Amino acid sequence: VPFSVSIIGVVRTDRTTTVDTPVQAALNPDEEGVLELDPAYVDGLDGLAGFDYAWLLTWLDGPAPAGAEEPPEPREPLNLRPVPFLLARRPRPIGVFATRGPRRVNPIGLSLVRVVAVEGALIRFAGVDLVDGTPVLDIKPYVGAFDGPPGPVRCGWFDELALPPGATPASLSGPE
Amino acid sequence: VPFSVSIIGVVRTDRTTTVDTPVQAALNPDEEGVLELDPAYVDGLDGLAGFDYAWLLTWLDGPAPAGAEEPPEPREPLNLRPVPFLLARRPRPIGVFATRGPRRVNPIGLSLVRVVAVEGALIRFAGVDLVDGTPVLDIKPYVGAFDGPPGPVRCGWFDELALPPGATPASLSGPE
Repeated sequence: VPFSVSIIGVVRTDRTTTVDTPVQAALNPDEEGVLELDPAYVDGLDGLAGFDYAWLLTWLDGPAPAGAEEPPEPREPLNLRPVPFLLARRPRPIGVFATRGPRRVNPIGLSLVRVVAVEGALIRFAGVDLVDGTPVLDIKPYVGAFDGPPGPVRCGWFDELALPPGATPASLSGPE
Repeated sequence: VPFSVSIIGVVRTDRTTTVDTPVQAALNPDEEGVLELDPAYVDGLDGLAGFDYAWLLTWLDGPAPAGAEEPPEPREPLNLRPVPFLLARRPRPIGVFATRGPRRVNPIGLSLVRVVAVEGALIRFAGVDLVDGTPVLDIKPYVGAFDGPPGPVRCGWFDELALPPGATPASLSGPE
């Protein structure tokens, strides 16, 4: 039985195509975006400005934003062992649950952003890895005591990689 | 337009009631649980064992597990400024998007767990803040370079709190 989720807001950024959008907020920490929360939920933001960082849970398979150049892609069966963008030049398939890629069984994104300001139902944030128009499902405060392991940890195939600042699917797949 | 999410697996723990389940995995890091992934998705786990930690995205409003003592509660309108469990003794309402509580517009939980072993479609993990039978929506590897701010950060109302190990809704609301 599927559950249904509702959209609580939309992200506004200067990125209009996924191929030119950085793959992680941490690789593009200074670019700013705005979350436009549905005003019906504005009371839910009370206290958020006291946090430096927040998690955005987003829907990565939503309707393309108006004006975007990418037509909606035909739905293909999910590849459970895709090649991550970060491995495009040295292709190696990785189980989707060991990747952070957007094509997942449930295409829910997890972005850690810096809270710049909360202004009414708008959240100005820094750290853009979302295309303009991305639907938002939830906002959670980042809590250091909950959201990090107690020390350095193994991070699988990421431990072997250089993580280039600003990396996008396009920059990671083109000629080096 | 709501989106629909599907269940990719179920968490098995020794906790049968939410009131006696620790409120965060980090406050109960040694207790073990098992994620039973739908075997259809087993290829998606390839590579996960190389990560020490993973995020579980869960559905916190699912059907009660068989045998649970709590009847399904009647659905009430969501309180956008609830009192978090951790503030139960000094009640103060906080915007839901500045809390980590389970009653949210979209009741999606985010648990950071330690990956103990990946055995076929089973993931043994440590760090239990989920009641037995909780549906799982996604698994993501924890990546240190993406999932933490660059340094110490403000964490709002949590910064004023002691976070008692093993804290549950029951232990946080009973007499001190």
